[in-house]
Amino acid sequence: MEGETVSGIMQTITSPRDLSDLSLTEMKQLAREVRREIIYTVSKNGGHLAPNLGIVELTLALHRVFASPRDKLIWDVGHQSYAHKLLTKRWDKFHTLRQFEGLSGFPRPQESEHDTFGTGHASTSISAGLGMVLARDLEGEDYRVIPIIGDGAMTGGMAFEALNHAGHLKKNLIVVLNDNEMSICPNVGGLASYFTRLRTDPMYYRSKDEIEHLLRKIPNIGHAVLRIMERIKDSLKYLVVPGMFFEELGFLYFGPVDGHDLKCLVDILKQAGSAKGPVLVHVITRKGKGYRPAEENADKFHSTGPFNILDGKSAITKDVPTYTEVFGKTVTEEAAKNKKIVAITAAMGRGTGLTEFSTRYPHRFFDVGIAEQHAVTMAAGMARSGYKPVVAIYSTFLQRAYDQVLHDVCLQNLPVVFAIDRAGLVGDDGPTHHGLFDFAYLRTVPNMTLMAPKDEDELRGMLITALRHQGPCAVRYPRGAGRGVPLDREPPVIPVGRAEVLSEGRDITFIAAGNCVSLAERAAQTLASAAIGASVINARFIKPLDAECILHYGRLTGKVITVEEHVLPGGFGSAIFELFNEHNAGSIELARLGVPDCFVEHGSREQLRAKYGLTVEHLVNRALKMLGAPAD
Amino acid sequence: MEGETVSGIMQTITSPRDLSDLSLTEMKQLAREVRREIIYTVSKNGGHLAPNLGIVELTLALHRVFASPRDKLIWDVGHQSYAHKLLTKRWDKFHTLRQFEGLSGFPRPQESEHDTFGTGHASTSISAGLGMVLARDLEGEDYRVIPIIGDGAMTGGMAFEALNHAGHLKKNLIVVLNDNEMSICPNVGGLASYFTRLRTDPMYYRSKDEIEHLLRKIPNIGHAVLRIMERIKDSLKYLVVPGMFFEELGFLYFGPVDGHDLKCLVDILKQAGSAKGPVLVHVITRKGKGYRPAEENADKFHSTGPFNILDGKSAITKDVPTYTEVFGKTVTEEAAKNKKIVAITAAMGRGTGLTEFSTRYPHRFFDVGIAEQHAVTMAAGMARSGYKPVVAIYSTFLQRAYDQVLHDVCLQNLPVVFAIDRAGLVGDDGPTHHGLFDFAYLRTVPNMTLMAPKDEDELRGMLITALRHQGPCAVRYPRGAGRGVPLDREPPVIPVGRAEVLSEGRDITFIAAGNCVSLAERAAQTLASAAIGASVINARFIKPLDAECILHYGRLTGKVITVEEHVLPGGFGSAIFELFNEHNAGSIELARLGVPDCFVEHGSREQLRAKYGLTVEHLVNRALKMLGAPAD
Repeated sequence: MEGETVSGIMQTITSPRDLSDLSLTEMKQLAREVRREIIYTVSKNGGHLAPNLGIVELTLALHRVFASPRDKLIWDVGHQSYAHKLLTKRWDKFHTLRQFEGLSGFPRPQESEHDTFGTGHASTSISAGLGMVLARDLEGEDYRVIPIIGDGAMTGGMAFEALNHAGHLKKNLIVVLNDNEMSICPNVGGLASYFTRLRTDPMYYRSKDEIEHLLRKIPNIGHAVLRIMERIKDSLKYLVVPGMFFEELGFLYFGPVDGHDLKCLVDILKQAGSAKGPVLVHVITRKGKGYRPAEENADKFHSTGPFNILDGKSAITKDVPTYTEVFGKTVTEEAAKNKKIVAITAAMGRGTGLTEFSTRYPHRFFDVGIAEQHAVTMAAGMARSGYKPVVAIYSTFLQRAYDQVLHDVCLQNLPVVFAIDRAGLVGDDGPTHHGLFDFAYLRTVPNMTLMAPKDEDELRGMLITALRHQGPCAVRYPRGAGRGVPLDREPPVIPVGRAEVLSEGRDITFIAAGNCVSLAERAAQTLASAAIGASVINARFIKPLDAECILHYGRLTGKVITVEEHVLPGGFGSAIFELFNEHNAGSIELARLGVPDCFVEHGSREQLRAKYGLTVEHLVNRALKMLGAPAD
Repeated sequence: MEGETVSGIMQTITSPRDLSDLSLTEMKQLAREVRREIIYTVSKNGGHLAPNLGIVELTLALHRVFASPRDKLIWDVGHQSYAHKLLTKRWDKFHTLRQFEGLSGFPRPQESEHDTFGTGHASTSISAGLGMVLARDLEGEDYRVIPIIGDGAMTGGMAFEALNHAGHLKKNLIVVLNDNEMSICPNVGGLASYFTRLRTDPMYYRSKDEIEHLLRKIPNIGHAVLRIMERIKDSLKYLVVPGMFFEELGFLYFGPVDGHDLKCLVDILKQAGSAKGPVLVHVITRKGKGYRPAEENADKFHSTGPFNILDGKSAITKDVPTYTEVFGKTVTEEAAKNKKIVAITAAMGRGTGLTEFSTRYPHRFFDVGIAEQHAVTMAAGMARSGYKPVVAIYSTFLQRAYDQVLHDVCLQNLPVVFAIDRAGLVGDDGPTHHGLFDFAYLRTVPNMTLMAPKDEDELRGMLITALRHQGPCAVRYPRGAGRGVPLDREPPVIPVGRAEVLSEGRDITFIAAGNCVSLAERAAQTLASAAIGASVINARFIKPLDAECILHYGRLTGKVITVEEHVLPGGFGSAIFELFNEHNAGSIELARLGVPDCFVEHGSREQLRAKYGLTVEHLVNRALKMLGAPAD
């Protein structure tokens, strides 16, 4: 791979329309070039490797058959859109992928007219596409709308809602199912390709009638079978196509087709493009295709940091465990002590650190697929039956289950533990993935207990606390490495609603949540060197707040700065205000530091923290300003 | 009906177990008694009539076959649980249905051990049930778990997520599909009962083999059919059962069965109860069964206020249009002027006031079924394509689409209008239906514009404003009658972020949101009679707030009371604080009135408002207290 220069085919492509002039051989060469560019860039920048390698030929075929941006390609989840980006005039910027102010790792309408709909979370593309279809038909236009959705995202409830509605409406819509899980053995594959030919052949409809006619001639072979024959007219499709599920919902099913065979792909997409009504094209792809380490370990290479191209080994050396790892280890240890503990994930077992748990306690581990709503209410059902479910989930994805958290867990005050990973700024994945809203949407729900640890050791204590709590309980912690603190002591249960005083000073008080505590500690140290005494409180509980402690230091110093990696509206700082307000302590001067009321772009966490003032320097300056000192 | 006394069968029932001693004739008599009690009570108290009348026999059969509370009945949505309540020792309290401190209209675990899981929103029962099943199997117990779900709720995505997962796990679970939409004509019905017998007969499995054997003997009738026969082994189930969809997901399908035939119901439920793996029992019921006005107009009698039993006519005379009606009329009028306006509902066309719109503009009206997530993202797709979708939805149900509002609409800043009905306290339906969280979960999302009208005329202006706004926009208004204000003028567009000053006084300022504005006005009038000058500001915009106006009056009076029909954490009052805080106006004294951090029970809106201090008297007293005057 190294040593090769970026070759010539891509240089001839100034727009995706140029693809139609290429020979099959040239298309294959282009696929190689695209694949190489993806591997090369992701090895440096990190990103979603395996999904993008799996969909190269499909992307080429889609752009050859359909005329983007007039025809609308909608990439579900969107982490598989790299080839699409390379083909739509972004080759020269591709080296900035996932870098601050560079290309996004997801489709972004503001980035290109070819990105027709912004995605990031799973299962939205069919709904968005159906909306475009309805608009198109009201306008009397005739472009094609093509959601491309993975088999994983297809398990998300809203994808089903959309399929069900689209099947009912019978409007032209081309759903491409990118299936990288189904393994086709030669036998089934042969049958499948037979059916594909049968199905995509325009003669099919006549053949179906003929078959029906023939079946009617079958001699009487018993009462039961005769009655069955009565149903054959309706049921024939189940005999001749493997996509019964989709047919049942009202879709015409095409496939399955080999997603790495450019010729077959182009043929089937052309046929799908001229079909009437909603169609589903079932494409079988292989995750990581063309890069052996990713083919062999597609899960690991689903999303990766920088790596060494030659062997696929991580280019990052780390010596400090991540919050995710500490969570996984702790919950597994606790499960040994309490057999009522079960773990639930929505298709993120590895990402949330549950691999060891799933191996050690396979009967107490439940991966429900991409189905956050079901995950939470199923947990509520288990809690109702005396179990202690731990729902391990990313902050941004728990948004999908807000109603279930409120209506099924908290309203019934059920002891479900939410282990909320990737909270705060997640960095490179950007606005669809930052976990910047969880304080606001969780602390406002009655009965919820909500914690955020200052470090990975405190995460252990909070998890143990949550597992002993008799009600809904959430622990929210950030992406990435912990602070490297010792993890050798037995983590203590933390009294619910008890904050921690880390330093005492009489001039000003920092009250910080979660991973902002260390910022406050360092700011206090800096202020101390200027003879300013800052109290530092680790809130630990966002809800319930430690009223006594917070009011004491608030009144002692008269000036409080809250710090949180979260949007300011409705956030932790507002909770502190509410506390002061309820206790007639409104005269305490309060400054709230956090992310302003906006969606935050992608970039490294350090860059984003700097941009939004979550730095020691900014905390110090804010304190100096409140104290009337000239800022630095 | 009148003249009959409550008859004797029910008096013999001290527990649902007694049902097993009844003859079929006695069961039928009991069904009549239950039905009469439901009609009688709902005619006085209001409630969900048609769904409860439709499910009487099914409820009797369920309690006869299964041993509640050991076996777990889970009522999806729960508005069909009246017969269940009557049979589980709540007959004597049934007259308190939906009354303050009386029986809830929904299952509530704290009300009875037979209410195994609290419900209210649709589509949760299979997830909850599966959670119980997993807990049961981990414990090594053997009770049955029976979610009862309507065909409407089955379209909700999370029901699909749960079916998909349950079908995969293959554990014993009995899902009862209460289908009251499918009309069975005699022909299909005959076939259906044939299949029912075939399916529920233990001989079925042998028969299936026999049929297969017979089919293999069919003489060669052409190449295509031969190949089809190869597939028959797998496909046979599609020939002999109508429930292919569920079979595809891994369920064993029973039915359809007549949901008013007690004998058939008992037989099929017994068979389902002894089946292995997940089963689905398809029951056909008729909404409103046994009460002609409800049978003839099941939609109207789905949920009803008090009515005259003899003719079904409403017992409530009303002369003031509801907010819902004013919304429906306004959006229909605007649609005449702007052909880009489309209306979207999730199975609540009538409830949200869209009946006229749907008649006048059938091609611009989209009922997606119970599928709030899809509704919102489909709207985003239409907005992306240049349309102006109005998603009409209840506040409590929009919780289901929180992530779609955030991730699909607001992140892309798309001009979707949310017409949020039933916001604030909804009264009799209780905690699952109050709309008390929407300020918190919407105002904290970037790019959202959020309004609340003080009366039904202002609702018109806000709707027009929203329809002209180039971004996400929500208007949130309460259940029930407006204030009776004139509606004859052309409603003006309201400048975004502009509040309205209703009265000026120098002593104190009320800043009120939505339907709390009239409380503030009346409180100001009362205070004026005591020579206290109160400014009253109708915030109109919860986001963006009118900083200039609010700061001016806040500083003028130095004392501010916010009033909202919403929980206090993260609510409107906190938004006002945030504004003061950002503008260094923290010295303004602020009191926030609203609902505390708890779930609110059912009761009349007046009772609930009184309980939580949303009364003129309480506003006046709070103002007097802030002013240092002795409270009343």
